[in-house]
Amino acid sequence: MSRSVMVLGGDGFCGWPTALSLSSRGCDVTIIDNLSRRGIDAELQVSSLTPITSMEERLIAWEEVSGKRIAFHNLDIARDYEGLREVLDRRRPEAIVHFAEQRAAPYSMKSPRTKRYTMDNNISATHNLLVALVDLQLDSHLVHLGTMGVYGYDQADTEIPDGYLDVKMPGPGGEWQDRQILFPTTPGSVYHLTKSMDHLMLQFYARNDGLRITDLHQGIVWGTQTEETRKDPRLVNRFDYDGDYGTVLNRFLMQAAIGHPLTVHGCGGQTRAFINIQDTTRCIGIALDNPPCRGERVQIFNQVAETLQVQGLAELVAELTGADIAHVPNPRKEAAKNHLCVSNAGFRSLGFEPILLREQLLEETVEIARHYQARCVEEAIPARSLWTPDNQSGVLEGE
Amino acid sequence: MSRSVMVLGGDGFCGWPTALSLSSRGCDVTIIDNLSRRGIDAELQVSSLTPITSMEERLIAWEEVSGKRIAFHNLDIARDYEGLREVLDRRRPEAIVHFAEQRAAPYSMKSPRTKRYTMDNNISATHNLLVALVDLQLDSHLVHLGTMGVYGYDQADTEIPDGYLDVKMPGPGGEWQDRQILFPTTPGSVYHLTKSMDHLMLQFYARNDGLRITDLHQGIVWGTQTEETRKDPRLVNRFDYDGDYGTVLNRFLMQAAIGHPLTVHGCGGQTRAFINIQDTTRCIGIALDNPPCRGERVQIFNQVAETLQVQGLAELVAELTGADIAHVPNPRKEAAKNHLCVSNAGFRSLGFEPILLREQLLEETVEIARHYQARCVEEAIPARSLWTPDNQSGVLEGE
Repeated sequence: MSRSVMVLGGDGFCGWPTALSLSSRGCDVTIIDNLSRRGIDAELQVSSLTPITSMEERLIAWEEVSGKRIAFHNLDIARDYEGLREVLDRRRPEAIVHFAEQRAAPYSMKSPRTKRYTMDNNISATHNLLVALVDLQLDSHLVHLGTMGVYGYDQADTEIPDGYLDVKMPGPGGEWQDRQILFPTTPGSVYHLTKSMDHLMLQFYARNDGLRITDLHQGIVWGTQTEETRKDPRLVNRFDYDGDYGTVLNRFLMQAAIGHPLTVHGCGGQTRAFINIQDTTRCIGIALDNPPCRGERVQIFNQVAETLQVQGLAELVAELTGADIAHVPNPRKEAAKNHLCVSNAGFRSLGFEPILLREQLLEETVEIARHYQARCVEEAIPARSLWTPDNQSGVLEGE
Repeated sequence: MSRSVMVLGGDGFCGWPTALSLSSRGCDVTIIDNLSRRGIDAELQVSSLTPITSMEERLIAWEEVSGKRIAFHNLDIARDYEGLREVLDRRRPEAIVHFAEQRAAPYSMKSPRTKRYTMDNNISATHNLLVALVDLQLDSHLVHLGTMGVYGYDQADTEIPDGYLDVKMPGPGGEWQDRQILFPTTPGSVYHLTKSMDHLMLQFYARNDGLRITDLHQGIVWGTQTEETRKDPRLVNRFDYDGDYGTVLNRFLMQAAIGHPLTVHGCGGQTRAFINIQDTTRCIGIALDNPPCRGERVQIFNQVAETLQVQGLAELVAELTGADIAHVPNPRKEAAKNHLCVSNAGFRSLGFEPILLREQLLEETVEIARHYQARCVEEAIPARSLWTPDNQSGVLEGE
C-alpha cells in the first residue's frame, strides 16, 4: 500500500512541487490549503511571473500527465480546527508536511495588520495541528518547514549544527560541564520569529506527547521548476519577484531579464544560505524516509546547499546575464556584514548532494524570467516593507 | 505629576493587588481586563474561596478607602486590537504591567479546547500589545509577567541566573569561546510554553524596535491578602483552591482547613520556587522604578523568594496545622524528583528582602482558609487535568 502523506500549504511555492514530487514517488497525497497565497497576491496587486493555474486545473493536469490523483481540501488550519481534525481523522496520514504558514519576512513587517496576521496565523496553524495529532492519537511523522533565519545573522564564528549544539555550562562549583542545547535563535523579522516560536512548540509536543517530528531549517529557495512541474505548462510553479515574496536570487534574475540593475541592499555583505527548489523536494523525501522514533527528540536538519554573500550572488548573476549592480539602502534592520557557517551534515549523511548555484539550473531560471518578462510589473520589484521607521529615508532614496 | 501605569489583567490574583499597590504608591492606574478569569470560574463551576466583589464594587471601595481612583476598561486585548490601541493612544502610559494571560498550567492541559485557547489567547495578547506600542511609537516601560516554569525542572546543577547565562561555545577551530545566551527553556505545559514563546517576542521587539521591556520570571505565588486588599472586605483578593487554578501551597492550606489530608503528587520530590503575593506587588514596584533604557536588551529578573520541595512544603503545613499527608499519583508529566537552583540576585541587589514561608503570613493564609471554609467545594480540590492519557490511571486511583 502506498504511503499516505498530507501536504499542508500544498498550493504554495514549495508546497506544490513537493506534493507533485511525493505523488510521483508513489505516495497517496492530500493537499490542504486555504489558497491564502493567491489571496495575498490579490491584496498586493502582484502575481506570479509564471502563469499558475487554479488548483483544480493543476490537479487535472497532474492526473493526465502522471495517472495519479491528488486530493485537495480548501481549509484554513489556523481557523478551522474542527475541519482539520476531521480530515486528519478520516485520512490518518502516515506523514504530514507542514508548509501552511505566511512565509515572507517583508510581508510580516509591512504593517501592524500583517505583523498580527503572520503571528496569529502561523502560531495557530502549527499549534492546531499539534493539538489535533494528540487529540486523535495519530502517530503521523510531522515534517515542519522552518528557516535558517531563526538563527539570525550574527552567530559569530560558531558553525550552526543540525539543531543541537554542544556547549559548556557552569556547574555548582563554577566548573564547566558539558551540555547540549538547542542552538539559540535570534530571528530578524516577525516571520522568522514565528518559526522560532513554532520550534518551541515542536519541542514541547515531542517531549510531552511523544509526537514524531522533523524540523527543517531551510535556506532561501531559488529556482522555479522541478522535474514534475516541467511536465506540463499547467503544472508550472510560482515565480515571485516582488519586494515582499520574491526571494533575493529570483528577484535578481527577474531584474536581469528586464534589463534593470540588480538592487543589492546595503553593501551586500549579508551572507545567506541557499537551496534550489528541486532540492527542497528531494530533502523532504529524504526526511520522510528517515522519521524519528516515538519518544525521540525533534530531529532537526539544516536544509541548505551552500552559503553566499548577497554581493557575490549579484556578481554571479551579473556575470551570467550582463546586468549592472546598484547598491540601495537596506530596508531591514540587520548588520551590514555577517559571517554564516552552516552544517548540512545531517542531510549529506543521508545521501543529499545539493545543486549549487553555478550549475545550469541558474540558466534555466534566467530563461523563465526572460520568457515571462512581459508579465513583470516593474514597480513591484523594489522591497518597500520597512523593518523600522528609521529605515525609511534609505529606501525611498535608493529605489 | 503622578506616573501613569496600565495594569493588563488587573482583575486577577496578581493583577488586582498590584493595581492597588501601585495606586497606593501614587501611580495613576488604569486596569484593562476582560474578566475572563471570572468566566473560567463559571465554566469550571468553582469560585474563589474568598468572596470577591465585582470590579465596579472593588473600585468604589478603593476610592472610599484610599481617596484614589482607578480607571477600568473591559477589553479583550487578544481579540480587540483596535480597542487596545485606542486606549493606549489615549492614556499613553509611562509603564504597562502585563498579566493578561491564561495562567494555569492544569487548565492549559485540560482539553484540546483549553490548549488552543491558552495558546491563541496568550500569544495574541502579548503580540498585540507589542505591535500597538510600535505602531503608536510609545516608549512605555513594559513589565511582562513570565514564570520560572519556562525553564522546566531538569536543569541539572546549573544555577538559573536572571535570564542570561555565560557559556562556552565551539569556535571555528574547535576552541571554546565565551558567549552569553538566554538560559534555555524547557516548558512543562502549554501554559509555560506560551511564556517561553512570549519571551522570544519580547527579545525581538526590544532588538528591532527598541522597546523597553522587563520580563519577570515568577515563582509559584502563595497567600491572598496584601497591605491594600486587607483594608476593606470588598477589596479581598482571590483565593483559588481548585485543582486547576489553586497553586500548591494554597491548596494545602485549604485542605488543612477542612481536615483533608494534604495531597502530594508522587513522592513530592518536585522542587519549586515560591513567592508571597505581597512580594509580587513589591517586586513589580522595584521593576517599575528600574526601567531599562531604550535600545537595551530585555531586562530579566527571577521573581522568587525561595525554593522548596513539595514534600517539605507539605511537612511545613502539616506541622503548622496538624494535617495528614497523602501521596497521590502525579497528573503531570515530569521527573519524580528534581533540583532547582535559582538566583534572585537581580531583585536583591535592588533592595528586595523576600517574605519566607516560615514567617507569619503562612498563618494568616491558614486563617483565611479556615474563615471561609464553608465556601469550599471539596470535590474541586483534586487536580484532574492530565498531561497525557498515560497519567490517567494514577490520578483516578489516587484522588
